[in-house]
Amino acid sequence: MASHTIRVGVAGYGNLGRGALAALARCPDMRLAGVFTRRDPASLRLPDPSTPVYSLDDAAAHRGEIDVMILCGGSKDDLPVQGPALAQWFTTVDSYDTHARIPQYFEAVDAAARAHGTLSIIAVGWDPGLFSINRLMGEAILPDGATYTFWGKGLSQGHSDAIRRVPGVRAGVQYTIPVPEAVARVRAGEQPALSTREKHRRECHVVLEPGADPRQVEQAIVAMPDYFADYDTTVHFIDAATLAREHAGMPHGGFVIRSGRTGTAENQVMEFSLKLDSNPAFTSSVLVAYARAAWRMRSAGETGARTVFDVAPGLLSPQSPEALRKALL
Amino acid sequence: MASHTIRVGVAGYGNLGRGALAALARCPDMRLAGVFTRRDPASLRLPDPSTPVYSLDDAAAHRGEIDVMILCGGSKDDLPVQGPALAQWFTTVDSYDTHARIPQYFEAVDAAARAHGTLSIIAVGWDPGLFSINRLMGEAILPDGATYTFWGKGLSQGHSDAIRRVPGVRAGVQYTIPVPEAVARVRAGEQPALSTREKHRRECHVVLEPGADPRQVEQAIVAMPDYFADYDTTVHFIDAATLAREHAGMPHGGFVIRSGRTGTAENQVMEFSLKLDSNPAFTSSVLVAYARAAWRMRSAGETGARTVFDVAPGLLSPQSPEALRKALL
Repeated sequence: MASHTIRVGVAGYGNLGRGALAALARCPDMRLAGVFTRRDPASLRLPDPSTPVYSLDDAAAHRGEIDVMILCGGSKDDLPVQGPALAQWFTTVDSYDTHARIPQYFEAVDAAARAHGTLSIIAVGWDPGLFSINRLMGEAILPDGATYTFWGKGLSQGHSDAIRRVPGVRAGVQYTIPVPEAVARVRAGEQPALSTREKHRRECHVVLEPGADPRQVEQAIVAMPDYFADYDTTVHFIDAATLAREHAGMPHGGFVIRSGRTGTAENQVMEFSLKLDSNPAFTSSVLVAYARAAWRMRSAGETGARTVFDVAPGLLSPQSPEALRKALL
Repeated sequence: MASHTIRVGVAGYGNLGRGALAALARCPDMRLAGVFTRRDPASLRLPDPSTPVYSLDDAAAHRGEIDVMILCGGSKDDLPVQGPALAQWFTTVDSYDTHARIPQYFEAVDAAARAHGTLSIIAVGWDPGLFSINRLMGEAILPDGATYTFWGKGLSQGHSDAIRRVPGVRAGVQYTIPVPEAVARVRAGEQPALSTREKHRRECHVVLEPGADPRQVEQAIVAMPDYFADYDTTVHFIDAATLAREHAGMPHGGFVIRSGRTGTAENQVMEFSLKLDSNPAFTSSVLVAYARAAWRMRSAGETGARTVFDVAPGLLSPQSPEALRKALL
């Protein structure tokens, strides 16, 4: 099936971009055709020094060399601009993850992709992404039930940023942790009503500025609205060496659990879970699989914006439909 | 979106057919338009006595009244005949589950569906079905890894039938049980090589015929090739009342775990699991969701045989793509 090696561009070279290169290296049906950066291209140090590096501003000039562009920028500032802009010239996939703004972002990318005859799969990753698929399938298969999403144990980038903005904090990380009692009740099919506080707790590991008052810092963190006030939050003070040694990774994960009833009484529980040593490396791996699907859908004549809800699972695999039916069905 | 109420036929009224009726009753966008049976239609007792019941032999006469037919027959004798035959007249979904024969069955149904302009989604359920999707997605996203499928704890129909054929056995059931140590090693990302015996054990609850020798029966069961010889099997002798009281349900479930590496060292674990009080009722619920997708795909002009690998998740939900993006992505 894969007679054509899919030529992939990577736009942005942070954690996601590095993960995309590592994931592409494991896909013989795809080839890294270039990295596009807002930095000075000469400044990038790539695993393979022969990889072409271009300025993102010159991307349009390389449209003939790229089958799919993987957008590895951030959702806050990069993608709202880059998504619609790059959809003019490329079939794209991105991991836009600001849940509340997905409808607007979809419209903007859809308009660009339709106008220019490209295809873009947006909001790819694990949440939004694989978790979304499992929420949808849970509801569709067990309409009489309840869905629960738990995140963690994992490092939350947004909450870590929030504690680092507290006066007196030099550095720190925040872990989101599902409350085991809540998970157990959901898995048992109880369908409990759970408050925010009952579902997750938050654990902070903080390095203080010299002379900062730990009690004051702790109080500022646990009382922070939106981020911590609605949770049971624990603050641990550690030194910079401990932070570097024990908290440098970016683990994450979580569960989507659908608990529902069929017939008159039977309880049925579906669960999807992830336990990730590296959140960005996994997200990149999902992006690369959906880049394959994006190229196939565009090759079949489709244009416009899509989400993971629009992608048949078979399109993600390098194997032929016949081989998949024989080996994996 | 659901301006047309999907008219659904159910072919076969055993455990799966009963489950399909219960699942349809929970789907306001679908309507049970008739049950088709090989028995005397007057002999069926349905939850709603006003449901039309027809002879399966007369199915063709009702093609104009049915948008999708859910085939609820067995894989051994019913579906190999009914699948291709009913695909001549109806868009169908079925739960064909003889893994080794899926390619042949697919070809037979595909030929009938293409020739007659219908669409058939075959091998729908949880394994094959949801488990297959998770095997595929695990491999596609984490190509450098290993996939493990564990079944149970659950009642295995085939193995229960096998013990009931042993001389001296009046009645009995068999449970397949994943070995917890194996599951723990896989979840920890070890990617162990596991023998058949190391993955599952088998537990039998047997009612003896009067005068039968328990030691002889036990020996005949545990030594049975294919079914039990490769497993650690425990045989418990119980009385008929205990069997009826404690083993009348059809619970099942299991896990698909993909454990893989990204980057140089990070371990990433994806897991999908089911814990089902009723295996047939859950399978029926999956069939009903895919019936919705089958009708949509046929309405969009597609014909031929399909599997769960060909169905975009969004097609399973009664909600519109806009609503899904807003609420579930």
